[in-house]
Amino acid sequence: MKSIIITIGDELLIGQVINTNAAYIAGKLNSAGIEVRRVLTIGDEHHEILAALEESYPKFDVIVITGGLGPTHDDVTKKAVCTFFHTDLISSPDARKNIEQFLKSRSHSWSDAAEEQTHVPRGSTIIPNKLGTASGILFEREGKHVIVMPGVPYEMEGMMEDFIVPYFTERNTGKVVLHRTLKTTGIPESMLAAKLGDLKDLLGKATLAFLPSPSGVRMRITVVDPNRSAAETLIRDIESRIREKVEKYIYGADNEELEEIVGRVLAERKLTIAVAESCTGGLIADRITNVPGSSNYFERGIVAYSNESKIRLLDVPEKLIEKYGAVSKDVAEAMARGIREAARVDIGLSTTGIAGPSGGSAEKPVGTVWIGYSYKNETRAVKFQFGTERLRIKERAAQAALELVRRKILRIE
Amino acid sequence: MKSIIITIGDELLIGQVINTNAAYIAGKLNSAGIEVRRVLTIGDEHHEILAALEESYPKFDVIVITGGLGPTHDDVTKKAVCTFFHTDLISSPDARKNIEQFLKSRSHSWSDAAEEQTHVPRGSTIIPNKLGTASGILFEREGKHVIVMPGVPYEMEGMMEDFIVPYFTERNTGKVVLHRTLKTTGIPESMLAAKLGDLKDLLGKATLAFLPSPSGVRMRITVVDPNRSAAETLIRDIESRIREKVEKYIYGADNEELEEIVGRVLAERKLTIAVAESCTGGLIADRITNVPGSSNYFERGIVAYSNESKIRLLDVPEKLIEKYGAVSKDVAEAMARGIREAARVDIGLSTTGIAGPSGGSAEKPVGTVWIGYSYKNETRAVKFQFGTERLRIKERAAQAALELVRRKILRIE
Repeated sequence: MKSIIITIGDELLIGQVINTNAAYIAGKLNSAGIEVRRVLTIGDEHHEILAALEESYPKFDVIVITGGLGPTHDDVTKKAVCTFFHTDLISSPDARKNIEQFLKSRSHSWSDAAEEQTHVPRGSTIIPNKLGTASGILFEREGKHVIVMPGVPYEMEGMMEDFIVPYFTERNTGKVVLHRTLKTTGIPESMLAAKLGDLKDLLGKATLAFLPSPSGVRMRITVVDPNRSAAETLIRDIESRIREKVEKYIYGADNEELEEIVGRVLAERKLTIAVAESCTGGLIADRITNVPGSSNYFERGIVAYSNESKIRLLDVPEKLIEKYGAVSKDVAEAMARGIREAARVDIGLSTTGIAGPSGGSAEKPVGTVWIGYSYKNETRAVKFQFGTERLRIKERAAQAALELVRRKILRIE
Repeated sequence: MKSIIITIGDELLIGQVINTNAAYIAGKLNSAGIEVRRVLTIGDEHHEILAALEESYPKFDVIVITGGLGPTHDDVTKKAVCTFFHTDLISSPDARKNIEQFLKSRSHSWSDAAEEQTHVPRGSTIIPNKLGTASGILFEREGKHVIVMPGVPYEMEGMMEDFIVPYFTERNTGKVVLHRTLKTTGIPESMLAAKLGDLKDLLGKATLAFLPSPSGVRMRITVVDPNRSAAETLIRDIESRIREKVEKYIYGADNEELEEIVGRVLAERKLTIAVAESCTGGLIADRITNVPGSSNYFERGIVAYSNESKIRLLDVPEKLIEKYGAVSKDVAEAMARGIREAARVDIGLSTTGIAGPSGGSAEKPVGTVWIGYSYKNETRAVKFQFGTERLRIKERAAQAALELVRRKILRIE
């Protein structure tokens, strides 16, 4: 099945918003065995949407449209789809039920805008929206599919996951495209590639892409095969071969986040943790508490931005700060030990560094970060250098701190 | 002048790479007075590129193409452009000079790949590439412009800045497109629209788009006018009219983040702040410390996830938690007062809520959040209901807490 993704929104045409929806949808359609041949972005005007539908309908089996479904005046997609299919809008009981449930969950009351949102094109199927009031719409005609979803990313993503991917995966008789992503951190792309050696030998007819980001390098394996089980065997086989060579750098796969992995490792061993953050400013605690159930192992976090808070809340001896400075091995270790003892947890984790843009010196330039760790009888700190950009420094330091916990507990040297 | 951006690359069609080039180019073309009507993404195949050119040439004045110009086997764009313009590739002395300079700057020697890169379509103009070996190409025919650039972002960006933007700005006798975005939080799109009233009256020939996200609704004003100063006057005028109606909900404009605004408001008044977070788990501290210079007003943060940490670190009376539960008005207020006194700051801010997915009850469902605030003689807490999804609840609670600080200090009721 050949498809086109049509993303609607003036904000995309003026460069105000980057089109992340298109990449997300493309990835999901591929995983459901649907080839994406085009992505088209247009403004939110009736005639533009209609023209795009008229051009695309004869050429593609699947047309996926996002955007222009909100309750305000720029909601034009529904009307254009009606014009294209020579139909009109009717109030849908399914849509009404969906909106009622959503509004109830937010303790919002019914409104004119909500009433408006119950209107969908006659003859279409509703795609439920668990995270908003705009229902998705599916038209199936002459073996072709036209799908309309809101442009709000998380609402669209919910519909893709819950409805579109299962729908097409079931119907799909074509090729299966499988992806598997292995996530690493703490090793640069070039070193990872060197450790993997000859890629042709390793991969055969599969492909491997290295996707670097500030928090680490992802390796994405892709296999295309008419036969699903052959594809599944091959991709598992290649994953094992890669793991043989670089296992220790791989903290997770696909959409797993490092904080989920660390949470699982802690929960399995019934260990508790507390964090004392200076330069990461709460980011580590934020990430740990993104995981449902984290209250079982996360006891507290202290964002000790001032020296006084380091001394009073973490029992860091004042003379240590005077002697070595707040950004130092000794202070990082004292913070980790201090939070571990104060919170009476198994593991204390700390960060202290210079996030910039000011505060750097020749000896301790911006990007210098000490990460401290206290567990059982061991208290240590490790020094890192994380570039010059404030948000990147916070991000990389938080990632390195969580990875340090993972490796220490799993005894990965 | 109407334009289409055509981005070429299989990686865009499988969702592996997000199309940041399109947003960049769109922004720059707009600033040069060229309206972008479409963005089209296609795979790197000769017939796809040719078909896209054939469709687009009659409809647009400017066609900007990126991708498929590299030295590897998927370099097909040049050949497709030759087919389209009924011409062939010739070795260009200008391109050769450009490549020689680039290789010299990198201490690289001449190669077969470099020789290949000197070939450009006969009759085209070279767009110099300071950051790579693939020259850009410009065709000007019958008042129409076809531009081809490499897909490597920084090479393309260099060409846009140094060549394309000045080129069109000089030639452009057409329209100027101006945008202004006003950022709101704490008010739904539909209510904002209702408060603005009749949009035709308000806007005249300008347009307004509502862009909702979990952290609030952005309103984007767009003005298109042949005269820059008339456009600037009009957009300022419309901004004032909108502010007259919904000023209190607008915390910032364009790319300003709420934490920057709050930081500025605190710094101007020489006020200090500390936060005590439960359900937001460190996100508020993380956002506050994203701002350079925040150490001047942010003293500390406590992520008091356990009851014991609320009692010991924030002086919350144990009997309050027993009587009302940790998620309650009284505990939120005690936390805000506790952190303010312990940190000896002007403002104490607190959150306590049920981020889910478990822990909810009929009386206090998932999404219930109390935000507490202590400043001078006033300590208060406000109740919110933030849906059912853990990360959205954290995000919306952090945004509402920061907004509460902004409104309290600025005395916005």
